[in-house]
Amino acid sequence: IGDSSYANNSLVQRKVILMTKPILEQAMSDLYCSLFPEALCIADLGCSSGANTFLVVSDFVKIVEKERKKHNLQTPEFYFHFSDLPGNDFNTIFQSLGEFQENLRKQVGEGFGPCFFSGVAGSFYTRLFPSKSLHFVHSSYSLMWLSQVPDLTEKNKGNIYMANTSPPSVIKAYYKQYEKDFSNFLKYRSEELMKGGKMVLTFLGRESKDPSSKECCYIWELLSMALNKLVVEGLTEEEKVDSFNIPQYTPSPAEVKYVVEKEGSFTINRLESTRVHWNASDNENNGGYNVSRCMR
Amino acid sequence: IGDSSYANNSLVQRKVILMTKPILEQAMSDLYCSLFPEALCIADLGCSSGANTFLVVSDFVKIVEKERKKHNLQTPEFYFHFSDLPGNDFNTIFQSLGEFQENLRKQVGEGFGPCFFSGVAGSFYTRLFPSKSLHFVHSSYSLMWLSQVPDLTEKNKGNIYMANTSPPSVIKAYYKQYEKDFSNFLKYRSEELMKGGKMVLTFLGRESKDPSSKECCYIWELLSMALNKLVVEGLTEEEKVDSFNIPQYTPSPAEVKYVVEKEGSFTINRLESTRVHWNASDNENNGGYNVSRCMR
Repeated sequence: IGDSSYANNSLVQRKVILMTKPILEQAMSDLYCSLFPEALCIADLGCSSGANTFLVVSDFVKIVEKERKKHNLQTPEFYFHFSDLPGNDFNTIFQSLGEFQENLRKQVGEGFGPCFFSGVAGSFYTRLFPSKSLHFVHSSYSLMWLSQVPDLTEKNKGNIYMANTSPPSVIKAYYKQYEKDFSNFLKYRSEELMKGGKMVLTFLGRESKDPSSKECCYIWELLSMALNKLVVEGLTEEEKVDSFNIPQYTPSPAEVKYVVEKEGSFTINRLESTRVHWNASDNENNGGYNVSRCMR
Repeated sequence: IGDSSYANNSLVQRKVILMTKPILEQAMSDLYCSLFPEALCIADLGCSSGANTFLVVSDFVKIVEKERKKHNLQTPEFYFHFSDLPGNDFNTIFQSLGEFQENLRKQVGEGFGPCFFSGVAGSFYTRLFPSKSLHFVHSSYSLMWLSQVPDLTEKNKGNIYMANTSPPSVIKAYYKQYEKDFSNFLKYRSEELMKGGKMVLTFLGRESKDPSSKECCYIWELLSMALNKLVVEGLTEEEKVDSFNIPQYTPSPAEVKYVVEKEGSFTINRLESTRVHWNASDNENNGGYNVSRCMR
């Protein structure tokens, strides 16, 4: 925070959040109206610690307040879990909560809640919450990160990610890691969600069937070109670049569908892909600058 | 952490924890054996972020594991909430959890849990947890802190705490703040604890009936003497010292009993007072040094 790369990343994330807002709101409203629970427990996985962290909280409160008033019900207790890796800056989240809640009460009025908040540190590729304790899981812009760099049997020479010059075994290893990680994610969440619970997951993906297609890999190829140039100039070792790989996978809609159905705990209500433009606003024309800041 | 004053404070706290260990263990064991729940939810209020933070977790796991084996039951899910003010260093807690859990599994074996952990930031003089969500509340060395400096109608001239030269209205205001705060604490915890839940609260208190007795006030009188000397030397303003007061109250056993019974949500199983020596170990004779480090 305070770092311009983060601030920009935050802008791209905010665009993602705005784009998925109608889907998120529909899911939240459906969830609330199917259960009308007296206490609602929501987890945001990969919450980070910036301005976007609280967006899902205000959305949720607003949607539920609208619905419960429409149905003439008491306001429920809200219980929000902010979860991210142990290296996340939870202190900043906790220190911003007071001001956030004050603003929320100004926007929504006094009559909702109480709201309770907790921080939960750990990988979402492990169990994070007690059994059947959650109503709703949200994750935005996080699930494209794998739990680890795939175990590669061949060197991914000259590349730092899947590329069209990568050996087929590298592409396969990336997919295997993705399938294993996403299956684990689904299994653990199905243990944590209560009956009737819902998830909205937003992550980077691709439209092409080819996992080394330009749409998802080109951005890392630019970076590997730069690193390879450093090797040529003698500023870094070839071995270091060859053994460095980015633990990310951006699945196609078909791959997502396949893993969800194979794992079997969840059914898909909606599966959509949307293109995000790199420009922070549609009036701007500084895409290259934004890309480099965001990737940094 | 890394600050010697903290490290020493931590030693005094550890002595307190060791002294109350048998009481804590009895209460934990009684709680588990009266409910035999499949999931156990425990909150530590005023958890801080040092070596002592995890002691209550290992104690709890060990006691419950002993009892559930004796009764030939499945291990429950453990859910621990670490709670302290928003300024607490939760990041350090979260970053230490991995190593702590590894050590715990070495000590207790693999067969327990799973354990889930969360951080909850806020004052224990407000609601912190959802209704009827907790089995057990623990608080060590924190409840002597008031929610605020008492509202004083007269100046507490030359003092920074209750002293025998304080006006009676100051003593009364301190007590009123204590009664209000501790009553709120009890009320909120009674909303958060489920039926059959228990609390073990350890805090600084006094044996004397007189709230300005030396046993609890002398240590602050030493500090006010030093501050008054700074005033005489012109290094600080008299007004500043006169308006500065420590938000602490160390109740007598009779006062604790009175507030608990007046508030009415809880019954007292055990109410005990024990003296703590300032020496870090009983072989040491550096009490003055320890006192000054701890108060700093």
